[in-house]
Amino acid sequence: MFMRALVYDGGLRLATDHLMPAPPPGEALIRVSLAGICNTDLEITRGYMGFQGVLGHEFVGQVEACVEPAWIGQRVVGEINCYCGECAYCRQGFLTHCPERSTLGIWKRDGSLADYCSLPLPNLHVVPPEISDEEAVFTEPLAAALEILEQLHIRPMERVVVLGDGKLGLLVAQVLSLVGCDLTCLGHHEKKLAILRRRGIDARLADQVAGLKADCVVECTGRPEGFAAARALLRPRGRLVLKSTYHGEVTADLTGLVVDEIALVGSRCGPFAPALRLLQRDLVDVASMIDSVYTLDQGLAAFERAKARGALKVLVSAE
Amino acid sequence: MFMRALVYDGGLRLATDHLMPAPPPGEALIRVSLAGICNTDLEITRGYMGFQGVLGHEFVGQVEACVEPAWIGQRVVGEINCYCGECAYCRQGFLTHCPERSTLGIWKRDGSLADYCSLPLPNLHVVPPEISDEEAVFTEPLAAALEILEQLHIRPMERVVVLGDGKLGLLVAQVLSLVGCDLTCLGHHEKKLAILRRRGIDARLADQVAGLKADCVVECTGRPEGFAAARALLRPRGRLVLKSTYHGEVTADLTGLVVDEIALVGSRCGPFAPALRLLQRDLVDVASMIDSVYTLDQGLAAFERAKARGALKVLVSAE
Repeated sequence: MFMRALVYDGGLRLATDHLMPAPPPGEALIRVSLAGICNTDLEITRGYMGFQGVLGHEFVGQVEACVEPAWIGQRVVGEINCYCGECAYCRQGFLTHCPERSTLGIWKRDGSLADYCSLPLPNLHVVPPEISDEEAVFTEPLAAALEILEQLHIRPMERVVVLGDGKLGLLVAQVLSLVGCDLTCLGHHEKKLAILRRRGIDARLADQVAGLKADCVVECTGRPEGFAAARALLRPRGRLVLKSTYHGEVTADLTGLVVDEIALVGSRCGPFAPALRLLQRDLVDVASMIDSVYTLDQGLAAFERAKARGALKVLVSAE
Repeated sequence: MFMRALVYDGGLRLATDHLMPAPPPGEALIRVSLAGICNTDLEITRGYMGFQGVLGHEFVGQVEACVEPAWIGQRVVGEINCYCGECAYCRQGFLTHCPERSTLGIWKRDGSLADYCSLPLPNLHVVPPEISDEEAVFTEPLAAALEILEQLHIRPMERVVVLGDGKLGLLVAQVLSLVGCDLTCLGHHEKKLAILRRRGIDARLADQVAGLKADCVVECTGRPEGFAAARALLRPRGRLVLKSTYHGEVTADLTGLVVDEIALVGSRCGPFAPALRLLQRDLVDVASMIDSVYTLDQGLAAFERAKARGALKVLVSAE
């Protein structure tokens, strides 16, 4: 049983003869309807994580086979970290930190830029009917934005800066601004910043930062230079949230962090249920973040487009 | 110089010959356009705070006189606690806890259910043009709802129950649900609960609580019985936020709080700036919460209506 899949194995290629997943009893076989390309996918093709296999971890699809009949036919999104459930991390509830984990399209598990993927049943969430496929495919990155609110107490009176107007920056700015905080997003693309401005969120070109000092800065630039830029915007005793993941290291002034008593918080994957609640209530505009939709057969062109400077979310459809 | 005012001095009456405020140099004279009646006003007429004077602390109006010309003519709302700025509390930034404070229409300062009121300039906030008077008059109670997010870290994955579908309960439910948490509001009035349901918020009659156990319960019933009801909905180690203020005491099982390690948090006035940000972005529906609008001449009838069971926000207009 073969399927189409976007495979990275040193080079990126569209395979038409990739073996379909053969899910074990606790997992579901999911037919992917729509998948997204994330910067992490691009970073993997630059060496990040050393991953080889089918790319992709943002998707919405339909359960086609699994041992529990109630799931069959359900429209689902899926949390991407697959955990053992038995180790010390899992027993403490730190499921996304299980050292035995595989991660969809990122680590030890084929991803969703294919006709099919598979995930354990506890990872799946049924998508409410009010949420379209084009919106549901943003659940994973929206959950990653919400992870900040799981980790940090962002107060309504705080001055928050989101650095970067890429896909993740736009989601983080939208989510954090819902608590009423005094938020500014800094970016380089008028078109992207306009998405936030339409929601009533202050969004500026990155050079318009004169005098800006924040209680909390979220680094979403996806670039090594983002760290120093975020640091420069932070008041003493402020909090710096790191969201960017990239291949390569950064030289940072750690002594400065000590002197200014900065709290640094790394933030990765987040919870799906609140992301679906926000989408269901139209509290986050994801539709405006769609750059283009390609078919799976056009997968290589989709990747090229996703790499283009200023590109927003590129989606890959099964049709 | 006389004006109209709703005065409580043992009984409630509409005075037409009340002395106009004579603000000292640091304060502004404000012509009130629209004022709201709060449950606290009703409680004062039942003996709460022992206050006598002009009632009212929710308003929007226009600055008519003050020493700083830039303020004159501005449409404003005003924070209600007037502090000394010099005591140990003020120096720590706990301005709403200044022991020397006066509070508009509640403590040592005439209120806004009148033609004019006065407040210190640092208490004033200009209302952005996108916000109508009918919305702006909700800034004070909306700020009180936001105070919860200043005090507590409410996480998107938490199970939150708001107890009470009165005016404050509806605002608290709307504000807290913006962080994506799994929130239910429990009340007694289908019409009020419908306001939340239209925003996609789970709202149920209070008897539909079978099996409900929350990480955090916010008590907004305005009644002494609310405490035990909130307590019953809380899981061990949960957090109970007290928002109701009323005249009279409550008998509570404090040992139970120790055994279950419950955290109790009292919550009062909150920050105006984020309240204006949420109103400006239409993230909270206050328009649906307007019960009726009376003129100041009809002030006594307005109070009667505000006392009626199930009444929502009664507004009092200058015209």
